[in-house]
Amino acid sequence: MRIVYADNNATTQIAPEVYQAMIPLLTEEYFNPSSMYDPARTVADMMADARERIARHLGADSPRRLLFTSCATESNNTAIRGTAEATPNRRHIVTTAVEHPAVLEVCKYLQRLGYEVTFLPVDGDGQLAMGDYVRALRPDTLLVTIIHANNETGVIFPVAELARIAKETDPAIVFHTDATQSVGKIPIDLEVDYRHVDLLSFSGHKFHGPKGVGALYVRRGTRCRPLMIGGHQEEGRRAGTENVPGIVAMAKALDLCMENHDEQEAHIRRLRTRLEKTLQERIPCVQVNGRGAPRMPGTLNISCHFVEGEGMLFELSNNGICASSGSACTSGSLDPSHVLMAMEVPFSAVHGSIRFSFSRYNTEEDVDKIIEVLPLIVANLRKISPYWDDEKNEPGADADKIIGKIPTQTGP
Amino acid sequence: MRIVYADNNATTQIAPEVYQAMIPLLTEEYFNPSSMYDPARTVADMMADARERIARHLGADSPRRLLFTSCATESNNTAIRGTAEATPNRRHIVTTAVEHPAVLEVCKYLQRLGYEVTFLPVDGDGQLAMGDYVRALRPDTLLVTIIHANNETGVIFPVAELARIAKETDPAIVFHTDATQSVGKIPIDLEVDYRHVDLLSFSGHKFHGPKGVGALYVRRGTRCRPLMIGGHQEEGRRAGTENVPGIVAMAKALDLCMENHDEQEAHIRRLRTRLEKTLQERIPCVQVNGRGAPRMPGTLNISCHFVEGEGMLFELSNNGICASSGSACTSGSLDPSHVLMAMEVPFSAVHGSIRFSFSRYNTEEDVDKIIEVLPLIVANLRKISPYWDDEKNEPGADADKIIGKIPTQTGP
Repeated sequence: MRIVYADNNATTQIAPEVYQAMIPLLTEEYFNPSSMYDPARTVADMMADARERIARHLGADSPRRLLFTSCATESNNTAIRGTAEATPNRRHIVTTAVEHPAVLEVCKYLQRLGYEVTFLPVDGDGQLAMGDYVRALRPDTLLVTIIHANNETGVIFPVAELARIAKETDPAIVFHTDATQSVGKIPIDLEVDYRHVDLLSFSGHKFHGPKGVGALYVRRGTRCRPLMIGGHQEEGRRAGTENVPGIVAMAKALDLCMENHDEQEAHIRRLRTRLEKTLQERIPCVQVNGRGAPRMPGTLNISCHFVEGEGMLFELSNNGICASSGSACTSGSLDPSHVLMAMEVPFSAVHGSIRFSFSRYNTEEDVDKIIEVLPLIVANLRKISPYWDDEKNEPGADADKIIGKIPTQTGP
Repeated sequence: MRIVYADNNATTQIAPEVYQAMIPLLTEEYFNPSSMYDPARTVADMMADARERIARHLGADSPRRLLFTSCATESNNTAIRGTAEATPNRRHIVTTAVEHPAVLEVCKYLQRLGYEVTFLPVDGDGQLAMGDYVRALRPDTLLVTIIHANNETGVIFPVAELARIAKETDPAIVFHTDATQSVGKIPIDLEVDYRHVDLLSFSGHKFHGPKGVGALYVRRGTRCRPLMIGGHQEEGRRAGTENVPGIVAMAKALDLCMENHDEQEAHIRRLRTRLEKTLQERIPCVQVNGRGAPRMPGTLNISCHFVEGEGMLFELSNNGICASSGSACTSGSLDPSHVLMAMEVPFSAVHGSIRFSFSRYNTEEDVDKIIEVLPLIVANLRKISPYWDDEKNEPGADADKIIGKIPTQTGP
């Protein structure tokens, strides 16, 4: 059975060119880049070149601003805990209710240590209210940490603007963004639009690099202590032998994303738009989460009322379609998505939510297959729902018992 | 020029079979193991199989005792800081003066936070005095963290015995060992000889796996908080998308080490023994560091008096020989080795120290080449030393000005 992989926000296929770039480092170029002899210098040079290219793609003023980590979770932990440790006299953190667990749980951890954390709410489209944000900034605010593009809904926060506001309010506030879903997809220029962002996290496997490698951008002068203590690697900011094959692979992956970025984006957006439009036409009582907000071109998060997301995923999987309900990091848990809950998506819809996320490797045929399969799956699952009137193909008489507000997004 | 790689304590060549095992996961099996669809389950199954095999090789009672990390440095940081966080009422740590920086620096970090740390001294052979150790254990001792095999000298500490003593003194003491240099080389059975060890760190790239993956063994019931906070991976003990290619590779690498372990060890020991004996014959005023202690079969750390280690390394590198002075993690720094300083190796010898470390891929020809080259290098470098009498080929009249004790190990 042909696999339709539509879960690119969870992880991505490693680009063949990326794999090719790794091969030398997994075979003959195995030396430790910290060693002094010539073959090791070759490896160190390859790592330096990778760092330089990634820095250039992000518009950093120097490759030295990047430190390599094992994943975005490590980058986020380093950024948040490292900032707290470097400036212990400030004890207030501003974040949002819709962060990835790698930020949310770290903030809650600091909260347990006595930090005060403001979790900004979002509206029904997943957007922040600027007024809330401005009011949240305080004289003792240490850190603002706000996700760039949401992993579940694809909603994009205006982090360049949010960072500017933070710095205008108080230049001592450190601004961090978890850009795991946006790097390689949204152009980021750290010396122009994003010049007020101090710390930026990402990982390679979200843009066709391998798992096991990430990075943290640290603006010059930003005070941030290391999470990983030990050897002198990464100028003392992250101990541990560097994952050179992963680092070189991540650079290659980012090269490929930037090479013909606009074409790739247009392709991905076309796929998503057609899927979104067609599913809205063919599935009654479906809502697109984050519909009114700026969104990542490849992410489609929908809620089908009166259906369980798990049931849909299972049937999709049986048809060779890989999609997700919420983030993979929390799948396996039965908790409803904290992102959709924060958006006040009705209870009956949160549980029926499903996320499709595309990459440049997806095709029109992939979209065809989802369109062919999903409306039938939803219709079949609804047959067993006591709240669905199968004859009329609309919510049944009892539906208002479990649904707060009637979905208004049905139809295109 | 043929490369003689004799720096296997810094990192190792990835075994071809290991690379082969990674290929599927770097190409078609790219799915996120946390995802729910069938192709992702295949990846999760491969990871579970890897965990099971590694657990079996170490004699752990369950694969669930292993959590995967990005490197031994992360494992060490997790073990030490996680233990401190889990049991805040105990504030004393016992370690040694000869730990790897990934332990030493973490202990110093906790010291700055108010912990009391006992750094046990070693004797001239790099061995601990059991009496010192027993006396160091106190009613408020939280943790003992002692390296299994030293990365610089290869000296092996009796951690099974040390752990037993700790537990007999106080079962609440947590015993951690950094086994980065020993896993895959010294047989470890965590339910038999090593049953008193609670936490054990290692990484894949020291035994022919790739860089970027490590593990921490955590005995059932051991209280240790996560370092990396976020998603639910590794049963909530280590957040972040798993480096599945690295994990599968590490398991394969360990399989290969254990398959014909005794043969490999005998081969490596034979190489080391011949090199040691011949260099002692051919280089006057050379001492073997750790000579009187149990040592890893493949490690040879020698000090050539009246020569700079950097100079030797440079000339060796010019001859295609990769060796090291001290650990790669601290190379680039001009500080003398803290391990040799702790062993009270004379000042004139610490700076002339060099480490050769072998793996199963080394050959008799590699040893021939080192034997051919090194004595000449040392003789040439000594010509420019004011403390060496080149005519007599022995220390000059002024030598006792810079040397505390006359080296006594010359000759076989």
